[in-house]
Amino acid sequence: MVDDITPMDVDFAKWYTDIVRKADLADYSSVRGCMIVRPYGTAIWENIRSLLDGMFKETGHENVMMPMFIPESLLQREKDHVEGFAPEVAWVTHGGAEELAERLCVRPTSETLFCEHYAKIIKSYRDLPMLYNQWCSVCRWEKTTRPFLRTTEFWWQEGHTMHETAEEAMRETERQLDVYARLCEEFLAIPVVKGRKTDKEKFAGAERTYTIEAMMHDGKALQSGTSHYFGDGFARAFDITFQGRDNKPQYPHQTSWGMSTRIIGAIIMTHGDDNGLVLPPAIAPVQAVIVPVAQHKEGVLDAAYALRDRLKGVCRVKVDDSENSPGWKFAEYEMKGVPLRIELGPKDIEKGQCVVVTRHNREKHFIPLENIEAEIPGLLQKVRDGIYQIALENRERRTFTAASMEEIMDFTAHQSGFLKTMWCGDLACEMAMKDQAGLSSRCMPFEQEHLSDVCPICGRPAKEMVIWGKAY
Amino acid sequence: MVDDITPMDVDFAKWYTDIVRKADLADYSSVRGCMIVRPYGTAIWENIRSLLDGMFKETGHENVMMPMFIPESLLQREKDHVEGFAPEVAWVTHGGAEELAERLCVRPTSETLFCEHYAKIIKSYRDLPMLYNQWCSVCRWEKTTRPFLRTTEFWWQEGHTMHETAEEAMRETERQLDVYARLCEEFLAIPVVKGRKTDKEKFAGAERTYTIEAMMHDGKALQSGTSHYFGDGFARAFDITFQGRDNKPQYPHQTSWGMSTRIIGAIIMTHGDDNGLVLPPAIAPVQAVIVPVAQHKEGVLDAAYALRDRLKGVCRVKVDDSENSPGWKFAEYEMKGVPLRIELGPKDIEKGQCVVVTRHNREKHFIPLENIEAEIPGLLQKVRDGIYQIALENRERRTFTAASMEEIMDFTAHQSGFLKTMWCGDLACEMAMKDQAGLSSRCMPFEQEHLSDVCPICGRPAKEMVIWGKAY
Repeated sequence: MVDDITPMDVDFAKWYTDIVRKADLADYSSVRGCMIVRPYGTAIWENIRSLLDGMFKETGHENVMMPMFIPESLLQREKDHVEGFAPEVAWVTHGGAEELAERLCVRPTSETLFCEHYAKIIKSYRDLPMLYNQWCSVCRWEKTTRPFLRTTEFWWQEGHTMHETAEEAMRETERQLDVYARLCEEFLAIPVVKGRKTDKEKFAGAERTYTIEAMMHDGKALQSGTSHYFGDGFARAFDITFQGRDNKPQYPHQTSWGMSTRIIGAIIMTHGDDNGLVLPPAIAPVQAVIVPVAQHKEGVLDAAYALRDRLKGVCRVKVDDSENSPGWKFAEYEMKGVPLRIELGPKDIEKGQCVVVTRHNREKHFIPLENIEAEIPGLLQKVRDGIYQIALENRERRTFTAASMEEIMDFTAHQSGFLKTMWCGDLACEMAMKDQAGLSSRCMPFEQEHLSDVCPICGRPAKEMVIWGKAY
Repeated sequence: MVDDITPMDVDFAKWYTDIVRKADLADYSSVRGCMIVRPYGTAIWENIRSLLDGMFKETGHENVMMPMFIPESLLQREKDHVEGFAPEVAWVTHGGAEELAERLCVRPTSETLFCEHYAKIIKSYRDLPMLYNQWCSVCRWEKTTRPFLRTTEFWWQEGHTMHETAEEAMRETERQLDVYARLCEEFLAIPVVKGRKTDKEKFAGAERTYTIEAMMHDGKALQSGTSHYFGDGFARAFDITFQGRDNKPQYPHQTSWGMSTRIIGAIIMTHGDDNGLVLPPAIAPVQAVIVPVAQHKEGVLDAAYALRDRLKGVCRVKVDDSENSPGWKFAEYEMKGVPLRIELGPKDIEKGQCVVVTRHNREKHFIPLENIEAEIPGLLQKVRDGIYQIALENRERRTFTAASMEEIMDFTAHQSGFLKTMWCGDLACEMAMKDQAGLSSRCMPFEQEHLSDVCPICGRPAKEMVIWGKAY
């Protein structure tokens, strides 16, 4: 039998780890802070990877494979970058029995490796833009970890590009943020806010960091993808120059952008419910499961296989013909978040129909078998639209504004969600929000609103609207 | 301009590295022994990965993602295994500023991690077989390295499976060797010999290692894929048991199998020539390049684009519409090993034809444009068959037999290739072959021949035929 999971309202953190375990997404290993991504979790990641990789290739990007190690001296070439990452890297000091002359860190991110390579291969403006990406795992020594959300090793893609002009690099930074937003909204059915990180929250070494922020069921924020503009800071540190159109040496302008296995945590906490995972159809390893009812009766299993063969061309489908009871199977595939369950028994066959149940709302649809290939894609779209709408409503219900410190403290005392306020732009006020209200800045949204003239923390003139929240 | 490369006959090793560099396959990094796989090399690996992954899924395997680190105590659980790998692993001793209580090695292979996981998830015979695979990079501290052939970090897949019976595990070991052989012969056009490794050459901890051995242009052997049968040795060391059909606890039987980026080295050295790379069509990132001739003349580029659009459905095709001369482009795509070059100029357009040149033999084919979609797949097949035949003939020309030590020494003095001899099965004779003739055992082929009654090294009764050679 499928055991029950802890209800979300009882203990959200426990609910989350119950789903990770019972839906067979990931397991712990004996390696501190590292997870094992099991076949079901890996299949989800492979589907995300395939969608993203397709979008990167549409925008002209090429994949490369860089070393997993960075020599200490290379990591130190850009000052802000090393300060940000050195405290959280794993150090290799020995190869076999021999002590290394120079320590190597296991890459926490690969700007330095790409820059060293770019210094060798970029010679002229004709070589630009360089639009590279890699799929790999990286390592950051985390104190406390949770599967997918924060692990010492995680899988991701990291794009690294070089451009002739600052404007072009800035357009790339924005374009790749749009790619992430499109993945989240269109395919993962996760509504996101696009915006810019404050200087405090930006990436180590970047001039600007753009982010997409999603809201989880419990009102907390999850940073779901980031895109960084570096200007020519790394290019100067790594001495990367190209011959410009004016025949003079120039520094190229750089971006990087990444999305990781964290996004699987976002899927769980945006769509899941007390019966388990709810998967967006675009990345579900199985989009429709056929559950035969009274499968020992003559003709039922054959009808189920025939239905599967007809549906193979329109969705990822499987038949569960195991000896478990239909009730057990219903619970199992609800736990695994399969978007559509197709029930098919002797009576259905007699009537020439099947019963399709949409996972997220348990709605039953009686569909004539003769139309089934035409109906399934529409039902999958309905699931995507349905779960997107639920997530959007959760976010809207949990989004508030505040124009005074009193309103901010009132929000903190009673709510969990996004808080919009104006901000003077000063680090001191950002720190005060953290210390007094326990809120961190999520982003300065691209879609700005004018809520008041002054910063509610210090009373000085406001510059921008910020979204604040508690974050994973 | 495309520079010339060192001819194969002048300096084979230099010819090889020239191709790696000039065909933009890989570059060196500042990380000792680690390579950067550039976009063209990565695209080749992605095509190989996609073919292999499809075959693994056909045989019921699932992908997982395991940690990149192995705690020292875990690596030590199986005695032969740790002895084989400990001398060549990279050790992580610090996380950030903190010294670790236990060292972690960067995985050189993942048997130990899979076994630890299997011990947790295998409970009953109903859980078997477990058919897992992972795509990742691994690290072995090599003294001397060459791109693709031997690098400290390399990319590969490693399959790890658990079975109810020894027979089933042995069948799996053989089946996966067949998958590798099929990839090599059918898709990569590389003829291989299937066989079993001697005890001296088998994998650390395995009971049996099967291998496919290919012959390079220079007569040296390249081990192209291996499949290992472990019996229940690891299962005992890791205390993995399952409840059998008889309700009693039993140890499962295990296999592992791997193929790596080394295979790209095999492609280079099996098919390449003095003009550069020659790629098997199945994995070529570009299968046909359209080179417009007199492209400034009206209608030529439009005709080239129209041709490309027609061919998109039947092959991976691109137009090179750059300002470089046709001669430069011809040399460039020969260097990159693109299987088909399609030349299209004003006269061709007038005659309603194009000229298709097959890379490996520079044969010209005048193909009517109206038939072009139908002709291209056949030409690609011809390339695969042609390069397979050339490779097979090279191997046959360089395969010899010997029935006495005199014949063995004569082979060593005058030839480079495969030497078949009978063998008594004794390690001392295998060592003598290495010491006296400089030859290592490649495998005991599945297809045995009876060459003589006695071992030519010691004169005692022969047990098996062995293929010997010099190896990469």
